[in-house]
Amino acid sequence: MAQTAEPPSGTRDFLAAEVRRREHAFAQVRGAFERYGFEPLQTPAFERLEVLTGKYGDEGDKLIFKILRRGEHEASGEADLALRYDLTVPLARVVATYGNRLPMPYKRYALGPVWRADRPGRGRFREFTQCDLDTVGSTSPLADAETLLAINDGLTALGIEDFRIEINSRQALYGLLDAYGVPEQLGGRVLISLDKLDKLAPDAVAAELVERGLGADIAAGLVADLSAEDTDRVRKQLDGTERGRAGLAEVDRLLALTGSLPPGRIAFTPRMVRGLDYYTGPIFEVSAPGFAGSIASGGRYDGLVASLGGPDLPACGGSIGIERILSQRGVEDAEDIGAGLDVALTVLAEEAEPALLRLAGELRGAGLRVGIYLGASGKIAKQLKWANDQRARYAVLLGPREFAENVVTVRDMGSGEQRQLPITEAAAWLRTEAGS
Amino acid sequence: MAQTAEPPSGTRDFLAAEVRRREHAFAQVRGAFERYGFEPLQTPAFERLEVLTGKYGDEGDKLIFKILRRGEHEASGEADLALRYDLTVPLARVVATYGNRLPMPYKRYALGPVWRADRPGRGRFREFTQCDLDTVGSTSPLADAETLLAINDGLTALGIEDFRIEINSRQALYGLLDAYGVPEQLGGRVLISLDKLDKLAPDAVAAELVERGLGADIAAGLVADLSAEDTDRVRKQLDGTERGRAGLAEVDRLLALTGSLPPGRIAFTPRMVRGLDYYTGPIFEVSAPGFAGSIASGGRYDGLVASLGGPDLPACGGSIGIERILSQRGVEDAEDIGAGLDVALTVLAEEAEPALLRLAGELRGAGLRVGIYLGASGKIAKQLKWANDQRARYAVLLGPREFAENVVTVRDMGSGEQRQLPITEAAAWLRTEAGS
Repeated sequence: MAQTAEPPSGTRDFLAAEVRRREHAFAQVRGAFERYGFEPLQTPAFERLEVLTGKYGDEGDKLIFKILRRGEHEASGEADLALRYDLTVPLARVVATYGNRLPMPYKRYALGPVWRADRPGRGRFREFTQCDLDTVGSTSPLADAETLLAINDGLTALGIEDFRIEINSRQALYGLLDAYGVPEQLGGRVLISLDKLDKLAPDAVAAELVERGLGADIAAGLVADLSAEDTDRVRKQLDGTERGRAGLAEVDRLLALTGSLPPGRIAFTPRMVRGLDYYTGPIFEVSAPGFAGSIASGGRYDGLVASLGGPDLPACGGSIGIERILSQRGVEDAEDIGAGLDVALTVLAEEAEPALLRLAGELRGAGLRVGIYLGASGKIAKQLKWANDQRARYAVLLGPREFAENVVTVRDMGSGEQRQLPITEAAAWLRTEAGS
Repeated sequence: MAQTAEPPSGTRDFLAAEVRRREHAFAQVRGAFERYGFEPLQTPAFERLEVLTGKYGDEGDKLIFKILRRGEHEASGEADLALRYDLTVPLARVVATYGNRLPMPYKRYALGPVWRADRPGRGRFREFTQCDLDTVGSTSPLADAETLLAINDGLTALGIEDFRIEINSRQALYGLLDAYGVPEQLGGRVLISLDKLDKLAPDAVAAELVERGLGADIAAGLVADLSAEDTDRVRKQLDGTERGRAGLAEVDRLLALTGSLPPGRIAFTPRMVRGLDYYTGPIFEVSAPGFAGSIASGGRYDGLVASLGGPDLPACGGSIGIERILSQRGVEDAEDIGAGLDVALTVLAEEAEPALLRLAGELRGAGLRVGIYLGASGKIAKQLKWANDQRARYAVLLGPREFAENVVTVRDMGSGEQRQLPITEAAAWLRTEAGS
């Protein structure tokens, strides 16, 4: 067993403190999303294989965990089911399954594990939690704005104070190519290079653009304007083209609708690109100091639900990189999230055990967290060490003498102070002291 | 897509109301277990195949969902991973993995999906949630008692008021065979037949015993005594054998320790058997009117962790049949569990949208659930219908005239009553009215 006792490669066991930390974070995000009227959705861990294949490109398909057929078909070595790879394809399948039985627009969030047979690495897992929210069936810019605001509130609820939402628009990107005279056939590759401006030096990006076939002057102009602190020059350029004006209008509407966000929280970022064959409208990406890469992203993808096998409905949404956030924030944050016993009951006299369990029941009935010593030692020191290990606030001592006299000793585990109480009053006293 | 849009056979999508109902039930059980100091544990959805195979018998092995190897190995048609079949084998694996880094005794609960390739049927799913609690590393009868009490509290927290915990002991079962002179080699089969006394008529069971080779007199005596309302005769018989006395002592200790339970809640049930090659000490089963079969069960299984590949540690635990309970209780229970909007914002004037979203932000900041109309209609009647469908308590109307005058109209969706408020006072008013 020694070698195989570890959980499978790329997966994790979550022991108590980590479960608490994660569930606490999940609850914060759920709370934020619920306040926007997004509804929870839970789908099965696996889908029919054909629902998943062909949706993630060749590279993605290779990472799908496939489930072998069962019974007499097992020997075929074929798969008929597969673990879900993301939460978006199941959403499209659900929209196809339930159709107009769903409220329209359908605003749902999903927070649950997905599985990818990626090479495991630091911060990269084969089982990890995704956190998505989407609005299917609305073309309203309010839906895009609400996505941003809900993501903003979700991140804030996770305790992230300093972050920046960069927004752009697919239309604005096309306008950019028009305005700077980038030849049509180079457009896609140029945008991919420009997206690197947040990582590479402007010169390096300009060089890459030239390598890709762009004229040196155009490359230099594009890079200079997109690297500038303010967006005035880019705005002026966009204003000179039809698609650019449409994109600017989209961006400015979104900025107006999210005007209640703190100053500097959201900014038009014309160099930001994101998946070109995915998004059709506004796009966004969230970055924060101390985090490599983005901690949230999303946009409008009106063709996606149909392309994933669902009905042809407009949609927009976003995703919080909850695993990235959880992995960055120290476990120490979890210490004060509801662990430790309120009351530890020591076991010093067998005849007193029914009375002890009765006391435990009364305290639990009042919502306290009560543990009882289950070890083999009759020694009080050893049992108090256990109480201490359990981070108990109070320990109850009920030995033969105390039991005969109908009293208990209550020990404050912080101060070491002890007091004797009639056993009939112990529950009331502890409820008051430990219940606060 | 039409044919494949359903979730895979035996699995379910949970839409909002059902997620709320289930999560609410899960939270109740978790709360009960937490009050006993049980700690949450979450393990991966899949384990290495060799961790699972051979643990569930031939029939069980056939029901394991196996995951195909990936990349160049996929063509081999072999599996190397498998979806977890229960929560007990992962527990044994975790105890093996973490050893003495776990608190000992290790008291953990687990509540999560497991997967079995069973033939799907009414109330039988291929993905379903199990709810286990176990104490590993303690031989104390207090651990057995706490298991019963925690299961009792879990069921109570689920709103089940009328249920009965039947307890017995492996020792008492052996004592029974000794006392009635059942030949050693018939023991196992006799017990399996006796276990049917809660379903079959006494005569039918007696006939089955004779068929299995037991003398007619012994069969008749056993069946008569075990069918009796009270346990006096069985107790007297058990008292005449060594194993019977040990079993009775075990049962009576447990009855004394759980004396705080309501009268009639727990009873010694000498005919109750349960998995013979699994349990080693006290066993229990919980039944309730309106439920076919048991709604909870468990016992002590000191050899189990070692037999599943973990270290040789004593253990006891129990399991609540949470899916059975959820499937029996109507969805109507869920209606009042936190769905519906507190405030629905209609969208009647584009120039007012930023102000609307600002108002939404203030209300959400106060914890209210606020939705905003995302449809295409500008008609107030249609938007109010939407608000009504969302079961909103209040709707906010902010048309061009109202916006120009810096007021909003607030409509009580229950009474239809409307009032006009300055826009700057709307948030405070709604916080007070809808926040209660």
